[in-house]
Amino acid sequence: MSTLLLKTLREEPADAEVPSHRLLLRAGFIRRAAPGGYTWLPLGKLVLDRVSAVLRDEMTAVGGQEVSFPALLPREPYDVSKRWTEYGDDIFTLQDRRGGDYLLAPTHEEMFTLLVQDMTSSYRDFPLLLFQIQTKYRDEARPRGGLLRGREFLMKDAYSFGLSESDLVDAYAALRAAYQRVFARLGLAHTIVSAMSGAMGGSASEEFLATSEVGEDTFVGCTRCSYAANTEAVVTVPPQALPMAAPALEVHDTPGTPTIASLVDLANARALGGRTDWTAADTLKNVVVTVHRPGADDEVLVIGVPGDREVDLKRLDAALAPATATLFDDFAARPDLVKGYIGPQAVKARYLADPRVAPGTAWLTGANEPGRHAINVVAGRDFAIDGTIEAAEVRAGDPCPACGSGELTIRRGIEIGHIFQLGRRYTDAFRVDVLGVDGKPVRPTMGSYGIGVSRAVAAIAEQHHDERGLLWPDEVAPADVHIVAAGKDGQIAFSLELAETLVGHGVRVLVDDRANLSAGVKFTDAELIGVARTVVVGRRLGEGFVEFRDRRTGERNDVAVTDIPRVIATSLG
Amino acid sequence: MSTLLLKTLREEPADAEVPSHRLLLRAGFIRRAAPGGYTWLPLGKLVLDRVSAVLRDEMTAVGGQEVSFPALLPREPYDVSKRWTEYGDDIFTLQDRRGGDYLLAPTHEEMFTLLVQDMTSSYRDFPLLLFQIQTKYRDEARPRGGLLRGREFLMKDAYSFGLSESDLVDAYAALRAAYQRVFARLGLAHTIVSAMSGAMGGSASEEFLATSEVGEDTFVGCTRCSYAANTEAVVTVPPQALPMAAPALEVHDTPGTPTIASLVDLANARALGGRTDWTAADTLKNVVVTVHRPGADDEVLVIGVPGDREVDLKRLDAALAPATATLFDDFAARPDLVKGYIGPQAVKARYLADPRVAPGTAWLTGANEPGRHAINVVAGRDFAIDGTIEAAEVRAGDPCPACGSGELTIRRGIEIGHIFQLGRRYTDAFRVDVLGVDGKPVRPTMGSYGIGVSRAVAAIAEQHHDERGLLWPDEVAPADVHIVAAGKDGQIAFSLELAETLVGHGVRVLVDDRANLSAGVKFTDAELIGVARTVVVGRRLGEGFVEFRDRRTGERNDVAVTDIPRVIATSLG
Repeated sequence: MSTLLLKTLREEPADAEVPSHRLLLRAGFIRRAAPGGYTWLPLGKLVLDRVSAVLRDEMTAVGGQEVSFPALLPREPYDVSKRWTEYGDDIFTLQDRRGGDYLLAPTHEEMFTLLVQDMTSSYRDFPLLLFQIQTKYRDEARPRGGLLRGREFLMKDAYSFGLSESDLVDAYAALRAAYQRVFARLGLAHTIVSAMSGAMGGSASEEFLATSEVGEDTFVGCTRCSYAANTEAVVTVPPQALPMAAPALEVHDTPGTPTIASLVDLANARALGGRTDWTAADTLKNVVVTVHRPGADDEVLVIGVPGDREVDLKRLDAALAPATATLFDDFAARPDLVKGYIGPQAVKARYLADPRVAPGTAWLTGANEPGRHAINVVAGRDFAIDGTIEAAEVRAGDPCPACGSGELTIRRGIEIGHIFQLGRRYTDAFRVDVLGVDGKPVRPTMGSYGIGVSRAVAAIAEQHHDERGLLWPDEVAPADVHIVAAGKDGQIAFSLELAETLVGHGVRVLVDDRANLSAGVKFTDAELIGVARTVVVGRRLGEGFVEFRDRRTGERNDVAVTDIPRVIATSLG
Repeated sequence: MSTLLLKTLREEPADAEVPSHRLLLRAGFIRRAAPGGYTWLPLGKLVLDRVSAVLRDEMTAVGGQEVSFPALLPREPYDVSKRWTEYGDDIFTLQDRRGGDYLLAPTHEEMFTLLVQDMTSSYRDFPLLLFQIQTKYRDEARPRGGLLRGREFLMKDAYSFGLSESDLVDAYAALRAAYQRVFARLGLAHTIVSAMSGAMGGSASEEFLATSEVGEDTFVGCTRCSYAANTEAVVTVPPQALPMAAPALEVHDTPGTPTIASLVDLANARALGGRTDWTAADTLKNVVVTVHRPGADDEVLVIGVPGDREVDLKRLDAALAPATATLFDDFAARPDLVKGYIGPQAVKARYLADPRVAPGTAWLTGANEPGRHAINVVAGRDFAIDGTIEAAEVRAGDPCPACGSGELTIRRGIEIGHIFQLGRRYTDAFRVDVLGVDGKPVRPTMGSYGIGVSRAVAAIAEQHHDERGLLWPDEVAPADVHIVAAGKDGQIAFSLELAETLVGHGVRVLVDDRANLSAGVKFTDAELIGVARTVVVGRRLGEGFVEFRDRRTGERNDVAVTDIPRVIATSLG
């Protein structure tokens, strides 16, 4: 370490919000080079390469073949797939010296598909599993958490190509199992949840979420069954359709009630409809949003949700993808939309409702006039809906959509892997057909399997640290053993000798041979860097002993110098 | 190979001009994905990774520490170094969603320098050698030769940081030796030549050129001494300054002589100055060019060279770097420049001359009037020069500038490595100072050491192929042995078994287990792919024999099946 490019930081970096980011900076694994772009320092590069090696190993074990595509790609294939437009501002685009349009690929579905079209011709070439470990680019609006969400990041993307649904199901199962092995080796505790497939298209879809308080994804579990899903993918259990039994719609003056809380208070105070048990859940909240559809005009959309729930903008975006939505705010331009008093009875926009707004349900909602609301507004009788939408927030305690009897719990996680049955979206777009067994053309069907490699490093750091620093799982640690020469001269020389011996035994060693530093500083750095095993070459060296510390168990033992290779071999297992 | 993503091509690809490009396409190592951008297929990725491994190995052996920078970088550091402007159209630039300026880094001097500024503070942190193996981008006007000159390519770049000239000289020597080991391992026959350092700045500079007819670089050697230089770096031996002894300048009518050949003919026919032995070498040709200086106005420049030589635009660009030049063609706008009859006597532009145009030399040159030339035009008497420039073509037979007695020979090569003593250009630009031994600040000095990794793959292919296909050196071959199951069923099953046995011995095996293909097709593919050793599992398998072929020696022997592991181990050495 006397020559290692390393500067540990004692103070918390100002711009780092999450533990992994703080510790990776402090321990000298990464440095910020650009907004959402990080430089890998020597220790960080070792960890990154270890993670990549595990991925390569497990992908190869399930028959994956490694390729590598350029990152800078011409526009044309992304026009064919319509993603040039769909991605909008989320991709980096540029023009070359001749004015040709290019992008920095956010993912490579188009290129994998074109490659398979080029390289295959018959059923004999299938099934096929291709992968790459490659740098990806996304112009994230809000890069955050260091490596957790960057604009330039390393990704392992894999695609399976098969000719039948069963090929796809088989590949999906094989990759799902491979991912479980990968994350086990990386030491990443995770939950597999049902997911939306987002802008990439496709159907069956699961995410691997590393459990972490700093994760951007919220996911639900069930108190009774094994159901687990990304919040965006949670399906609301609709009530059974009711008979249209409610009394006729009545409009009431409700001055000064633009909010649900004020409305409920007034409804109970005035005993509207003879009731004094009104709650927010009895009201129908109508939220106006502007839908931005890539390559098309904006659309004003009204969404109806029970008044005790907010619209969850992430769920809304997931439901609308590839379109996105923002809250509508130009009520001056739409006098028909009476802010605070909107009801679905006469709305002049597309109206989508939460599944709880089922036919026959009766609501207290706006009357489309300032200061007036209506009761007994019955879905399917007093208003029509143009469709349902999963946009209402999910709450702990909601009924489980899988078993129906359990309740949902909510946790946070970091998306470290995503697998899904992509199907023929891209083979259709590029009209990829190969000769089938029966001599007729067959269109291959694809599975998509991604792991964020740089993000995985951050996720490991999130799950493997304590107040003193990082604590890497063996499989990805930058070294197997960290030797600390506690004193000077003789101890440093011996440490270097010991390091050489251990390297000869195939052990990866980091040796702190820095002169002019106190043992205390070296111990602090060792704990920050996070190699689990430390050998302290200190005072008892004269008697032939060094200290072996295992930070995971907390054990500290004096060990005879001659015994160290054996002790370390045993510890490494 | 029955599952390998491989499609060999029998026909020559239409758009591939050089052997390496043709063969790498035909043998299924790469595919074009973008102008100057290639996809690495499974076999190609294996070779690329082998080359990278050799580089990593040798860089680590000389104390190099691996880091990895982003490719997408903000403009600011490149403004500080002035390279944002200097590179001009040669870099890809883009804006992010917030309008910030970014580039795809063509090289990372700025980032290495900033990293060292961030991570070091005192003389104890030096010397330091950092490297990365990373994707680079250049918006080449003319990408060519497949991997030889791309717009997205893999590069190993290394920088040494030292505090003294001797640190720099030591690092340079260590890296020079390391590069020789690298290229020996990669099987690349090469010449080390003196070079210009180009847009990267700096002084002492050498290139490693892989000898190849398709190389873009021409370089010279000497028939008597060890001098070798890139043509751009050849220094002209100037004649000794002469006394101003020529008779007075005389202007003659020379109608219809806008070219050197026509002028010489007329001069001899009319016995100008009483001579009939005029040759082109006696004339002074004045070439007008427009100099494009990044971030500045264009300049008209006149260059004087002996009339028997052309201006070499590559040498001119190298001499003017970072500026570039194009031939001037707007003579209508400059009536003072009389096309075909320009002389340096009254030129109203900066005038740079070839070193052969030494003080006292007398020339036949233009008289700056249509149809008139002058003789006895003496440099330093009848005209002044603003400086010398190395822009005239270098020719075989020119005197060697090193020993003076030998003659230059000219060959072509592929630039596979470039090392140079960069000095303090970047540490000056970023004001990097560290604490010196004496307590005073010291400014580190840098060396720069690059190897084009993807280009090296092409260079190896150029040097290692024959009419039948590629023929990889062991160190980079995609496999150690290629097993060909010549027939079906039993032979295929045995081939797979044998492959497994060999893999168990640590041998890397490619096995052609494709059914439905003739032995001939498989042999042709094996030769195209270029693994040196082939084991043919054929007719004599029943007797317990297979055939072992070594394509390098041409040997073919029947070997007992049980003997194969030993024979291969011996062959691998």
